[in-house]
Amino acid sequence: MLIAILLFEEITALDAVGPYEVLARLPGAQVRFVGTSRGVVKSDGGLGLSIDHTLSEVTQADMLVLPGGFGARRLARDEQVLAWLRAIDDTTSLTTTVCTGSLLLGVSGLLRGRRATTHWAYHEQLAAYGATPVAERVVCDGKYRTAAGVSAGIDLGLALALELHGRETAEAIQLSIEYDPAPPLQAGSPGQVSTAVRERLHRRARARDSELAWPG
Amino acid sequence: MLIAILLFEEITALDAVGPYEVLARLPGAQVRFVGTSRGVVKSDGGLGLSIDHTLSEVTQADMLVLPGGFGARRLARDEQVLAWLRAIDDTTSLTTTVCTGSLLLGVSGLLRGRRATTHWAYHEQLAAYGATPVAERVVCDGKYRTAAGVSAGIDLGLALALELHGRETAEAIQLSIEYDPAPPLQAGSPGQVSTAVRERLHRRARARDSELAWPG
Repeated sequence: MLIAILLFEEITALDAVGPYEVLARLPGAQVRFVGTSRGVVKSDGGLGLSIDHTLSEVTQADMLVLPGGFGARRLARDEQVLAWLRAIDDTTSLTTTVCTGSLLLGVSGLLRGRRATTHWAYHEQLAAYGATPVAERVVCDGKYRTAAGVSAGIDLGLALALELHGRETAEAIQLSIEYDPAPPLQAGSPGQVSTAVRERLHRRARARDSELAWPG
Repeated sequence: MLIAILLFEEITALDAVGPYEVLARLPGAQVRFVGTSRGVVKSDGGLGLSIDHTLSEVTQADMLVLPGGFGARRLARDEQVLAWLRAIDDTTSLTTTVCTGSLLLGVSGLLRGRRATTHWAYHEQLAAYGATPVAERVVCDGKYRTAAGVSAGIDLGLALALELHGRETAEAIQLSIEYDPAPPLQAGSPGQVSTAVRERLHRRARARDSELAWPG
C-alpha cells in the first residue's frame, strides 16, 4: 500500500507526523513524502522536514494524506499542485486530510457536495468550497476521510488502521505509540474554553486570512 | 526561552514533534534542533528531519527535550553525546524526555534516585539506571519531566505550557492544535488490550534489544 504524504513550506508538522506515525506501522505500508521540489521545507514552527519525491515522480497512490498549515494557502493558488491533486485522487482508494488540508482539497473541487471537517476555526471556509462542514473528529464520505485540527491526524490514522487491518492491528499500533491521552486541561474543543481564549484564536486566524486569503 | 530538541537517526518522529508542536507556540520560545552533525536524519518510519545545529553549537538551553526511538540506543553508547547531555543539563531549568529518551538520560546517570517514566515496555530498563519507574503519563521530579511512550510528548508539552505560562496560554495552545483526542478504540495503555496484543509488542521490544541492547 503506497501512501503519499504532501509536504510544503509552512506546513504544521504534527498534521503530517500524527497520521504518519500510525500509518508507517501498517503492515505493507510504503510511505512517500512528496512536494513541489525535493529537499527540506520548514514547518511553521521551524522544524525542517524532508521532501524525498517531486509531484511528477508520484503519480499514483493507494492513500493520499494532505496536511494543513499556513503554507497550504500558497499551494491552493498553485495550478500545478491542484492539477496533481485531482490526478492522484483519480488513482487513490482513500484520500485523506488533516486540519486545513481539507481546504486545499476543497479548492481542488473534490469536496463539493460532501460532508467534511477541518480545523474548528475554518468551518465557514470549508462551506465556501461546496462541502458541508461537520464538527466531528474524523468525517467519512465515500473514499474521503477528513480530520479536525492538527492533533486529529492521530485519530485519523488509527481510524484508517482499524478500517484497513482490523481491531488487533489498530490496537497494537495504538499501544505501540502509547496513545492514552491525558492532557492536564480540557481545552481541545471550542466549547471547552472561555470566550476570551476562543476569540483570541479566531482573531489570529482572521489575521492570517488578511495576510494571505484562502482563494474563492 | 531557548529549547533544545535532540534529533538523531532512527528517532521516533512523534516523540519530538508532539512536544515541539506545543512548545514552539509558547510566548518567547526559540526552538533549536540539535544533533551530532547537521543535515537530515531519517526517523524510524522514513520521514527525514533536519538537524540545524551541532552539539558543540548548543552548549546552553533553558529546556532540553530528549525524544526516543531505536537510534537512542546508539547515542547511549556515544561518549560525546553523554558528555554533552551532562554538560547541557547543568545549564537547563527543565530537562525533559519522551518515550525511551528517558533511558538515554538514565544512561547519562542523571535519573539516579529519581522517579521517572518511559514507554510502558521499558520500565525495567529504566530501573537498571537507578530510577524508580512510575506508570504515569508525565512524571515530575525536581527539574526533570519524563513522559510515557511516543504520543505522551503532547501531554508533556501541555503540562509544561501550564507550568510556565499558566492556564490561559495552555488552553489557547491546546485549542489551537485541537487536542480533543477521540481514538476509535481504547487501547493506549497495556491494561486495555488483550494479552496477545501486549505480548506481541513485548516480543518486538525484546527483539530490538537483542539487535542492539541498551547499555548497562
